[in-house]
Amino acid sequence: MLFHVRMDVRLPLDMPPAQAEQLKQSERELAQSLQRSGTWRHLWRLAGQYANFSIFDVASVEELHNLLMSLPLFPYMQIEVTPLCRHPSSIRESDA
Amino acid sequence: MLFHVRMDVRLPLDMPPAQAEQLKQSERELAQSLQRSGTWRHLWRLAGQYANFSIFDVASVEELHNLLMSLPLFPYMQIEVTPLCRHPSSIRESDA
Amino acid sequence: MLFHVRMDVRLPLDMPPAQAEQLKQSERELAQSLQRSGTWRHLWRLAGQYANFSIFDVASVEELHNLLMSLPLFPYMQIEVTPLCRHPSSIRESDA
Amino acid sequence: MLFHVRMDVRLPLDMPPAQAEQLKQSERELAQSLQRSGTWRHLWRLAGQYANFSIFDVASVEELHNLLMSLPLFPYMQIEVTPLCRHPSSIRESDA
Amino acid sequence: MLFHVRMDVRLPLDMPPAQAEQLKQSERELAQSLQRSGTWRHLWRLAGQYANFSIFDVASVEELHNLLMSLPLFPYMQIEVTPLCRHPSSIRESDA
Amino acid sequence: MLFHVRMDVRLPLDMPPAQAEQLKQSERELAQSLQRSGTWRHLWRLAGQYANFSIFDVASVEELHNLLMSLPLFPYMQIEVTPLCRHPSSIRESDA
Amino acid sequence: MLFHVRMDVRLPLDMPPAQAEQLKQSERELAQSLQRSGTWRHLWRLAGQYANFSIFDVASVEELHNLLMSLPLFPYMQIEVTPLCRHPSSIRESDA
Amino acid sequence: MLFHVRMDVRLPLDMPPAQAEQLKQSERELAQSLQRSGTWRHLWRLAGQYANFSIFDVASVEELHNLLMSLPLFPYMQIEVTPLCRHPSSIRESDA
Amino acid sequence: MLFHVRMDVRLPLDMPPAQAEQLKQSERELAQSLQRSGTWRHLWRLAGQYANFSIFDVASVEELHNLLMSLPLFPYMQIEVTPLCRHPSSIRESDA
Amino acid sequence: MLFHVRMDVRLPLDMPPAQAEQLKQSERELAQSLQRSGTWRHLWRLAGQYANFSIFDVASVEELHNLLMSLPLFPYMQIEVTPLCRHPSSIRESDA
Repeated sequence: MLFHVRMDVRLPLDMPPAQAEQLKQSERELAQSLQRSGTWRHLWRLAGQYANFSIFDVASVEELHNLLMSLPLFPYMQIEVTPLCRHPSSIRESDA
Repeated sequence: MLFHVRMDVRLPLDMPPAQAEQLKQSERELAQSLQRSGTWRHLWRLAGQYANFSIFDVASVEELHNLLMSLPLFPYMQIEVTPLCRHPSSIRESDA
Repeated sequence: MLFHVRMDVRLPLDMPPAQAEQLKQSERELAQSLQRSGTWRHLWRLAGQYANFSIFDVASVEELHNLLMSLPLFPYMQIEVTPLCRHPSSIRESDA
Repeated sequence: MLFHVRMDVRLPLDMPPAQAEQLKQSERELAQSLQRSGTWRHLWRLAGQYANFSIFDVASVEELHNLLMSLPLFPYMQIEVTPLCRHPSSIRESDA
Repeated sequence: MLFHVRMDVRLPLDMPPAQAEQLKQSERELAQSLQRSGTWRHLWRLAGQYANFSIFDVASVEELHNLLMSLPLFPYMQIEVTPLCRHPSSIRESDA
Repeated sequence: MLFHVRMDVRLPLDMPPAQAEQLKQSERELAQSLQRSGTWRHLWRLAGQYANFSIFDVASVEELHNLLMSLPLFPYMQIEVTPLCRHPSSIRESDA
Repeated sequence: MLFHVRMDVRLPLDMPPAQAEQLKQSERELAQSLQRSGTWRHLWRLAGQYANFSIFDVASVEELHNLLMSLPLFPYMQIEVTPLCRHPSSIRESDA
Repeated sequence: MLFHVRMDVRLPLDMPPAQAEQLKQSERELAQSLQRSGTWRHLWRLAGQYANFSIFDVASVEELHNLLMSLPLFPYMQIEVTPLCRHPSSIRESDA
Repeated sequence: MLFHVRMDVRLPLDMPPAQAEQLKQSERELAQSLQRSGTWRHLWRLAGQYANFSIFDVASVEELHNLLMSLPLFPYMQIEVTPLCRHPSSIRESDA
Repeated sequence: MLFHVRMDVRLPLDMPPAQAEQLKQSERELAQSLQRSGTWRHLWRLAGQYANFSIFDVASVEELHNLLMSLPLFPYMQIEVTPLCRHPSSIRESDA
């Protein structure tokens, strides 16, 4: 099942740069691992924003929730989840 | 270049069903043609909404605008356009 | 899987009463059938509003979407869908 | 009487983890006690959010207010209360 | 139990004046009857608005909902309901 | 003249409890004194909120403003003022 | 007492021009009469909007409400009322 | 040229009272000087708010901007600027 | 003086195409004439929207207001006006 | 390709003046360099706001994003990006 997720990151302005870097590095590693496993299907940056649009392919809402909660940047993100389904005009098999 | 577009459709409640069907049929044909050509990269339905999230791959903003204006349902849609770029954590070549 | 859905109904003020009654009657029959089958788990009215909060138990987002689209009042409703998951503090087996 | 409540929790980012854990533990114990007594009828997590939808069954608005004020996380929550009543199409005796 | 209700009335601009007058007259009679019985505790006009703030004293949410649904102007109103309880600093016995 | 006022209180999370208690105690004393003098006509708590709806009876806008500015919790409140007038359907002499 | 009022006018697009002209003419005459009597203290147009900011000087909220309800364009206006008082830094006697 | 400006002031809750007083005193002196010179045409307090509505008479947008930037409270204010013009129904020469 | 204006056009869905074409043609002619005279400094289309961002160079707010009111599409537009001034970092003489 | 960008700057109130000055100075130098190269096409100040409207001319969304991320004030800005295209009524060659 596919879910569209928008994540907006807001790191505290006084967070030490080393801590911010470490957080982003851990986030990147987890994101890439989840992309390799096929769970994090798409990941795009919004131009001019510290934010992304993502498409997740999960077996249940529970899996999606646990995944999002496990992100190192979760405490600093505002998250918006939209459940998706196949569009009747779509011709792309993998978009369902 | 990639653009994320949300389209919400609101047909007038008193539109004759035949006219609505014809509009949707023309829209579907154009959408599928643009998917086949690779311009309309992704197309998903929002659950419970007469709305979609789409990803377009175009050579310019002009091309995107002309494409959206040519949609048969354009006069009945509310459209939100967000320019995308490659996410530094993305591992998917085709998401750029 | 559980989804929380809010539906706000807005019938056109000039809809003939007989048509409105028929729509509501069809809606009621479908709602009750889906409650009996266990899909429409809960259904409450918001006080002072022509609106409801509902909990649906479905096997996929697709099933939820098709169900909502099939409601006779769908063309007259504004719908908001929120995916739910089990709360770590919940002790109620059926709330998952 | 039933009330629908949405609670969004926002702990200060600099709260010591031990204090946060203690708060959540106290909250969990109270939540489970109120579920056992039947007052906190339902409790669901919103996917991707540190937030819940709850259904409370209370004898009065006063009881609901005192209950919410007594939650250990109350100072850190944004709360939205919606009074519910039986839906005319509901067939579930316990949803009233 | 007390509930604070805001009602905003929007009559269609093309409603025949006689129909509007009759609706308002029926509304007034019901409002005054409910004030006499003590259920519609307070009723104020918002300056410059076709809107009111009201305080209702009812035995249940159900009673409040049925009352609001029975108002002749209900189909033309936007309604916002807020459950109230006694303020700890209040000295007025009847405000509870 | 009557004014409807909504006050939402937001004390800083790190305010020492003794200071918070003293502020609330001063606020309560002033609120009760103004109720006894008839200026603060009604005072209700919104269920689940650190907020109140109040009705003030003052001789001028100036009097209302000075009163609100003098509240010990004023620096911590968001305030919304709505001027009221007698509703044509009201039968309650004191609601004007 | 002074009140700041914003009025936004929205005439139906299909109103016959003669009717619109007559409404505006009646509105203008009343507005000028109320300016001459000193009640409608100031009247400005918002650039690019069919809207105005006005300052009214009235003896009571009741007087303000009756005045606004009597405007020929009232059924076509959205109105926002803000009670004013003398600013402590004002040096202009007539602004109070 | 006239501009309508709304200013909402939000001083940090932990600003030392002496600093706040000095800021307000400087603000008051500048405001009164600008009123005397005719630039700050009107100045009213919004009841119950630490906010004002002002009318400025300036020769250019540049002059308005420089004036607002020079206010001692500028770093603590949220400002909304609306350009005004003479209302066709106005009879007051000085409101243009 | 420069003003930034956003115009969103909403033609009624049932406007006869010939009337719509004539309106757009008149609008285009006026827009081009005002561009030639230097008053309508810039004009861009928002991608995917029937809307534009414009920069006007006028001698007064009055001139801007009269110009906007004279646009054939004015009755069908929502307009937002923002006064501009020279940015201290700008190096472009003509942007002031 | 042209993009319309609004930037609102919010420096922390307790940032040392020297640090703020240095940030603004670096920002100014980069802005002027980008103006000279033709990338930052226009730059205007919003009257009364610490904010600007800008027009960027870039070869891709990627270039725009990298440019915005490189601004010294980026961590303190709220940014809104709108893709533009040539308006059919524009006569200005350089506005495309």
